[in-house]
Amino acid sequence: MPELRKDPIVDRWVIVAEGRAERPHEFETAAPRRRPAPCPFCGGNEHCTPPEILAYREPGTQPDGPGWRVRVVPNMFPALEVQGHPDRRAEGLYDAMGGVGAHEVIIESPRHVVSTSDLSESEVREVLRAYRDRLVDRGKDPRLAYGLIFKNVGPAAGASIEHGHSQLIATPIVPESVRAEMAGSLEFAHSRGRCVFCDVIRQELVDGRRIVLDAPGFVAFCPFASRFAFETWILPKGHGSHFECVQDGAVGELSGVLRRVIGKIETALDRPAYNYLVHTAPFDTPELGHYHWHIEVMPSLTRAAGFEWGTGFYINPVRPEDAADVLREAESKTPSAEGIPSRRTG
Amino acid sequence: MPELRKDPIVDRWVIVAEGRAERPHEFETAAPRRRPAPCPFCGGNEHCTPPEILAYREPGTQPDGPGWRVRVVPNMFPALEVQGHPDRRAEGLYDAMGGVGAHEVIIESPRHVVSTSDLSESEVREVLRAYRDRLVDRGKDPRLAYGLIFKNVGPAAGASIEHGHSQLIATPIVPESVRAEMAGSLEFAHSRGRCVFCDVIRQELVDGRRIVLDAPGFVAFCPFASRFAFETWILPKGHGSHFECVQDGAVGELSGVLRRVIGKIETALDRPAYNYLVHTAPFDTPELGHYHWHIEVMPSLTRAAGFEWGTGFYINPVRPEDAADVLREAESKTPSAEGIPSRRTG
Repeated sequence: MPELRKDPIVDRWVIVAEGRAERPHEFETAAPRRRPAPCPFCGGNEHCTPPEILAYREPGTQPDGPGWRVRVVPNMFPALEVQGHPDRRAEGLYDAMGGVGAHEVIIESPRHVVSTSDLSESEVREVLRAYRDRLVDRGKDPRLAYGLIFKNVGPAAGASIEHGHSQLIATPIVPESVRAEMAGSLEFAHSRGRCVFCDVIRQELVDGRRIVLDAPGFVAFCPFASRFAFETWILPKGHGSHFECVQDGAVGELSGVLRRVIGKIETALDRPAYNYLVHTAPFDTPELGHYHWHIEVMPSLTRAAGFEWGTGFYINPVRPEDAADVLREAESKTPSAEGIPSRRTG
Repeated sequence: MPELRKDPIVDRWVIVAEGRAERPHEFETAAPRRRPAPCPFCGGNEHCTPPEILAYREPGTQPDGPGWRVRVVPNMFPALEVQGHPDRRAEGLYDAMGGVGAHEVIIESPRHVVSTSDLSESEVREVLRAYRDRLVDRGKDPRLAYGLIFKNVGPAAGASIEHGHSQLIATPIVPESVRAEMAGSLEFAHSRGRCVFCDVIRQELVDGRRIVLDAPGFVAFCPFASRFAFETWILPKGHGSHFECVQDGAVGELSGVLRRVIGKIETALDRPAYNYLVHTAPFDTPELGHYHWHIEVMPSLTRAAGFEWGTGFYINPVRPEDAADVLREAESKTPSAEGIPSRRTG
């Protein structure tokens, strides 16, 4: 079973998941894991994955057979395991617990597509609905504290399988950076009585220089203190702390915004590798006035070097204002599958 | 001038250093910067770098000419600039300041070597002395709060120039991860009256499973909550908060330990890319009972994926105990230049 270990000096947890590498020697070349052929995520190859947890299917089709549009399966190399108990314990100075949790793969289409921009808007909508459904389901497990949804596209962004997919990792502790966001936004709310994210949205919309896209219910901008070149955040304009509470109408609008933001990044930067992450409130919290869910999109343009790893202090070689200028102008050439014309905003 | 910007939600500063990329389009291929030919760091090519800040030279040789053993020059593409004032200011909600600081390159040999293991022990000793001398010098500048020494080896670790070199970035703020270490170790000292690092050293030496190398004055081990496979920390056994206060005798012993630890990693893992970082106390602090300087060595075996970036929660696929087992056994085949036999310890 994997193990969760806490650094004795700083509030940082690590998943020690030795099952993910057969032997230390697998690391000699830093190669991605052998890619199985045929692609285990393509329609018709459902037998190549563990049995499905959830699928949106055509009426009359059978589980683990063709006919699905979005399919969720357990990760073949899970970082955390569903069975067992957290079993919190000390080892002298140290804190550890069993690596209980969930590690799921959201397969975004039966077609062998790579990026979110290769999906139609209605396909993206179903992917976002699957995120919501899986968060709601995992949030019922009292052993779990947090659900992180993320997507890696391209080997430079850590993707080991090309076929477009996202992942959900649900953990028994709240990750360090989410705790830092929760603490920072709570402190702001205590002293000023407002949500810092709502304030940021208002300031960005008035300023305009960092806006990438301004839609009725969502805004995308390059944050003032972007860590990475062309980093772009998508936030709902209306306050809400939990992604999984988003209504169907908003999911529909968000699917268009997410697809368009990624299309802009790909047009401007020639389809780079990228990651995106959904930052949402922990499972066991009620609706919070101080926290505001959002999606962070990060193109993988440079490698983080020792300085970044060692200090948590990033060097970003592109001003967010310049990045936003480029992204505002760039529009994907891929027409929206629904035939909605791609309007310029901002 | 570069700019320092603070995230409005979490306590994270970013250097926006637009001079480091000519245009956004430079990022399209994520290629390293064009490497000048000939190598600007080789002996005889001193005219290819800015004038030297410090050099350890043979008697009678001239600055910016041949005859040096270690040479320190300003970075050609500095992340921060020496001239100017921090000029702290608000932009609405946001905090920013001028990117004042220092960005220096420590060229480790006039020979075109790559890794620390390619240097002789006496060369490593002079590199460590240069770190100390430059930290002492930069620490006198009242505008600067912290000096970070780090080394990137190999493109996968962020090195854009092959010739063995380290870097010093001195910043007007204390980086996030150092503040977290300072806060965590201070809290431990408040509640227990001891240095947490000293406690960790004692526990690791008694336990033994994670020890890589046990020398008279230093210990190297794979930390209990290692973020990366084969991550190895080197700590002085005697307490000390500031690297720059290390005495000559200890520098001599440390040079052998650092060289041997890197040799072990290279033997075990077939010369991977790696980073190392010196974690030391901020410039303006006196000797601190709760903080303990150390060096963190991190092989670049896997790419951090979205999960790690987004959460500060790492997945390490190799148990630190297994990594230490491998590293204890592995000894570099490169003989020590001083002819000291490489003893097995631990």
